[in-house]
Amino acid sequence: MEELVGDAENDFARESRLAMRKGEWTGVTQFRARDQVLANLVVIPKKWAYDFVVYCQRNPKPCPLIEVLEPGDPEPRYSAPGADIRTDLASYRVFRNGEFEADVREIGELWREDSVGFLIGSSLSFDNALVRAGVPYSPDVWVLNSSIPTRPSGQFSGNMVITMRWMSAEQAVIATQLTGRYYNNHGAPVHIGDPEAIGADLMNPIVGAPVEEIPDGVVPVFWACGVTPQVTLLGAKPELLITHTPAHPFMCDLKVDRICLP
Amino acid sequence: MEELVGDAENDFARESRLAMRKGEWTGVTQFRARDQVLANLVVIPKKWAYDFVVYCQRNPKPCPLIEVLEPGDPEPRYSAPGADIRTDLASYRVFRNGEFEADVREIGELWREDSVGFLIGSSLSFDNALVRAGVPYSPDVWVLNSSIPTRPSGQFSGNMVITMRWMSAEQAVIATQLTGRYYNNHGAPVHIGDPEAIGADLMNPIVGAPVEEIPDGVVPVFWACGVTPQVTLLGAKPELLITHTPAHPFMCDLKVDRICLP
Repeated sequence: MEELVGDAENDFARESRLAMRKGEWTGVTQFRARDQVLANLVVIPKKWAYDFVVYCQRNPKPCPLIEVLEPGDPEPRYSAPGADIRTDLASYRVFRNGEFEADVREIGELWREDSVGFLIGSSLSFDNALVRAGVPYSPDVWVLNSSIPTRPSGQFSGNMVITMRWMSAEQAVIATQLTGRYYNNHGAPVHIGDPEAIGADLMNPIVGAPVEEIPDGVVPVFWACGVTPQVTLLGAKPELLITHTPAHPFMCDLKVDRICLP
Repeated sequence: MEELVGDAENDFARESRLAMRKGEWTGVTQFRARDQVLANLVVIPKKWAYDFVVYCQRNPKPCPLIEVLEPGDPEPRYSAPGADIRTDLASYRVFRNGEFEADVREIGELWREDSVGFLIGSSLSFDNALVRAGVPYSPDVWVLNSSIPTRPSGQFSGNMVITMRWMSAEQAVIATQLTGRYYNNHGAPVHIGDPEAIGADLMNPIVGAPVEEIPDGVVPVFWACGVTPQVTLLGAKPELLITHTPAHPFMCDLKVDRICLP
């Protein structure tokens, strides 16, 4: 029960959100995060919400739900009581009918009575844990399309977007053990080794430089990626979709080392 | 992704469901279960489904969702492909407007185009794991009301129903570690020790004999209980609610020791 309840005394998270609300912090949220859970944001009209929440239930690795907000209510009552998802991220991305429209600083004008907010776990939450366990942080994280199908729900379907990190075999074992604990943050890898086995499109990454060949001596490790729900949603072309801008997720009161304990 | 996909080759589970469908097995499903996941069943009309799925998302300890079926579709495509939840349980319980109506052998006549089935994880799934780890199976499991509030969603709210087992201090530590892995089956205890701290109603158990006093030398350990969603649903008085009859859950193809790995 308690595992996803925000900490009302968490001044650091509240002050960080306030700094983003005021435009005093516009940098990469992760660099300010310490031990806080960072969550991807999705806002869609209520009529799309049932199929989407079931889509997330069916695809917990790419779409781990941290919180589903009440329709029309911008306060994440459990993961960040008192916060306002319309103002408390550093940057938002607006899509209409499946097309990018703009990055904006706040979404008060776009908020509707039937807007439903979703906070979705992110692998950013286990980066520091990997470092503490001896898997060095590397900025070389690729975001790739794959041929792994997600389970459809209503109008939502598509293949999984994945991240790729490469590391030593020993680190791959450590990373598998450790991320397997973070079931709210994509969990264990979906694949280790041969990229072709899961159709990882190395020549056309969504993020990162094209990879001609995996270097000798490293093991590529693949995780489900939070870009998946965004790509899936865009494919269904909702009239209005709002997400965080990449690198600017929502900072919860929740602690990373707490929410991995069921 | 794969963690909740049923095993199409799982003849044991399929044959067990067939035996229940034919009325050849009417006993306690758990006694036939081996390593299979046993799931509580809820069937409600679609108009109640959004608030209920969000209720489950907000209360993962009492209501861990194994699968949400498509509206009108009785096949659990992921946890038991080919099965039919209208016939494949040994016994069903029917409630109308929040009142018990009957226990029945199958629900084909009651199934509607807008019926939505939910399969919900059960602590039955970790019983054998506890035995293997040195915590003996005890039939003395109490089901109790508590004063722990669940997080509301729409018309659904109420206090958590809990189970109580008592054991040695050493066993309480083992049980906490072990059940903490089973995040699809109520996870770690919600409380250890003083029953009054969580308002555990020992004198009026839902299941079990009244307890005047906790014996010396044992530690009471409390878990969230799958009766919670049933009590919550009844409180909202849906026109039709169908559940499994106690002791007759649905047998999935899924393996207990697999679904605890995120």
